[in-house]
Amino acid sequence: MDISRIEAAARRLDGHARRTPLLSSPFLDEIAGRRVLVKAECLQHTGSFKFRGAWSAISALDPDVRAKGVIAFSSGNHAQGIAAAARAHGIPAVIVMPSDAPAAKVAGTRGLGAEVVPYDRATEDRDAIGARLAGERGLTLIKPFDEPEVIAGQGTCGLEIVGQAAEAGVTEADVIVCCGGGGLTSGIALALEAYGPDLRARPAEPQGFDDVRRSLAEGGIRRNAALSGNICDAIVTPQPGDLTFPIMQRLCGPGLAVSEDEALRAMQLTFRHLKIVAEPGGAVALAAALFRPNEITGDAVICTVSGGNVDPEVFARALAMPA
Amino acid sequence: MDISRIEAAARRLDGHARRTPLLSSPFLDEIAGRRVLVKAECLQHTGSFKFRGAWSAISALDPDVRAKGVIAFSSGNHAQGIAAAARAHGIPAVIVMPSDAPAAKVAGTRGLGAEVVPYDRATEDRDAIGARLAGERGLTLIKPFDEPEVIAGQGTCGLEIVGQAAEAGVTEADVIVCCGGGGLTSGIALALEAYGPDLRARPAEPQGFDDVRRSLAEGGIRRNAALSGNICDAIVTPQPGDLTFPIMQRLCGPGLAVSEDEALRAMQLTFRHLKIVAEPGGAVALAAALFRPNEITGDAVICTVSGGNVDPEVFARALAMPA
Repeated sequence: MDISRIEAAARRLDGHARRTPLLSSPFLDEIAGRRVLVKAECLQHTGSFKFRGAWSAISALDPDVRAKGVIAFSSGNHAQGIAAAARAHGIPAVIVMPSDAPAAKVAGTRGLGAEVVPYDRATEDRDAIGARLAGERGLTLIKPFDEPEVIAGQGTCGLEIVGQAAEAGVTEADVIVCCGGGGLTSGIALALEAYGPDLRARPAEPQGFDDVRRSLAEGGIRRNAALSGNICDAIVTPQPGDLTFPIMQRLCGPGLAVSEDEALRAMQLTFRHLKIVAEPGGAVALAAALFRPNEITGDAVICTVSGGNVDPEVFARALAMPA
Repeated sequence: MDISRIEAAARRLDGHARRTPLLSSPFLDEIAGRRVLVKAECLQHTGSFKFRGAWSAISALDPDVRAKGVIAFSSGNHAQGIAAAARAHGIPAVIVMPSDAPAAKVAGTRGLGAEVVPYDRATEDRDAIGARLAGERGLTLIKPFDEPEVIAGQGTCGLEIVGQAAEAGVTEADVIVCCGGGGLTSGIALALEAYGPDLRARPAEPQGFDDVRRSLAEGGIRRNAALSGNICDAIVTPQPGDLTFPIMQRLCGPGLAVSEDEALRAMQLTFRHLKIVAEPGGAVALAAALFRPNEITGDAVICTVSGGNVDPEVFARALAMPA
């Protein structure tokens, strides 16, 4: 992986992905005790940065291969990104999803034109189903993060951050990134390495599901003990990726971890002061910036709000938090 | 008022106001039965388009006059726009506000550096207080809509709409604008007249508070029977302005009016599909686009979401509406 791959992805995404705004509010600056800039990837197509990686991967395929279609395993933001990017390319998308996935997510993915293939988590093998479908139809599997063209697509967010932060007068800052498998974090880190010498990527995760933070601290890949039971489930993955971890290890500062309540409070504060909708997993970076000031140095911090796909019931919980 | 005044305002706003994004979602297109583009002015500084007019008016003042400061009557979005624009110019701002205004609005305005002067609605004369303060301190009154430089500032939103819609391939559409006194509507209408010959501005209001719709239909200024009791209070004004009405009469298509429930549902749909926060009065244009399809012609419609300053309790009501 090098910067030329991200730059090539940026050219393919031009005119298709949104250049999301870099927002700010004096009220957030005051809470954080330093200047806060927020990259609003919740405003990306399909409501999360995942559209970037999906578009990058699909647009990079050989046209004959691409025409047969793509397949992904996901019940979340990756599924929607793939579905929308595939539809815009005029190719079929198959999303293999647990049969107990929320109806809204199934409907949302189908609404973007994808075929949803449900499987029973207890009795069926997801990978076997995917391999069979891929073999029968010639579909290409697009992995959610540990895939070079996906990392390159997410890295385009980092290119935008460098440019937009400079426009705002910020060239030196920690760039805190909501981190699951590390696709967005490693992509942004590569972009900062090339163009933002005094910008440093740092992963943010939910407490208790901070596999990347621990992996970085301990110098090798560590797993999460559990994979569910946190409101930030969307960014909980078993462990950092084989491709993403070495990039993060080389380039990233220490990880940060926040509580569920802190993520919910950050969601309320984005509602109040930025007028954007953050999902819990998309709010952990801002939560770290606001509520972990002693773990950050410097006059400015940049955070991703990486997605906004949250159920109304969960958002209502954030609204009900103490201000 | 002519377009050169809007263009001059645009030059003064450049680098200070945000160029807010024009958003869309295939799910909204499906509900509306046509393509829907949403100008997200809730992402403007201070959470509403009012910052544009405030900046325009303050930046247009003679420097010696400006240095003495500005004064405004408002407990809402205009107050915050004036406060933020005055602070950025390094000048004092005095906001005269009813003493029973919500504490959050008082704190928000003070948080932006303005001096809040409360008055008792029952026993004190707001205009007399304002005149006294203005006389004593040499403050300039910035009216909320019936003021040429304010209209010019709001018109910059229309310039952006023309350009962004063309980028999205839309040059022919109704442009539905959330309408109180008509500053935003008339400003946008002037911009469309100059640069979007096949774009037509149309005001949207709450049912029962549709003074502009009735004024346009009946060919003269009509008043609202009441001034409170609607969830969209922020855009309820007594009647169209003396400056704004003739512009709207010359340039605008028929007005549209929506119910409180429709505004709340539109708020939920912007939450679900665009990941932005709309206040009730900021959602009426989108509500009209989604729920009044028979009053609109053409393949595309453009709506402003003009503000996002809504209390968590009210937003929770929108989230609880049937999907």
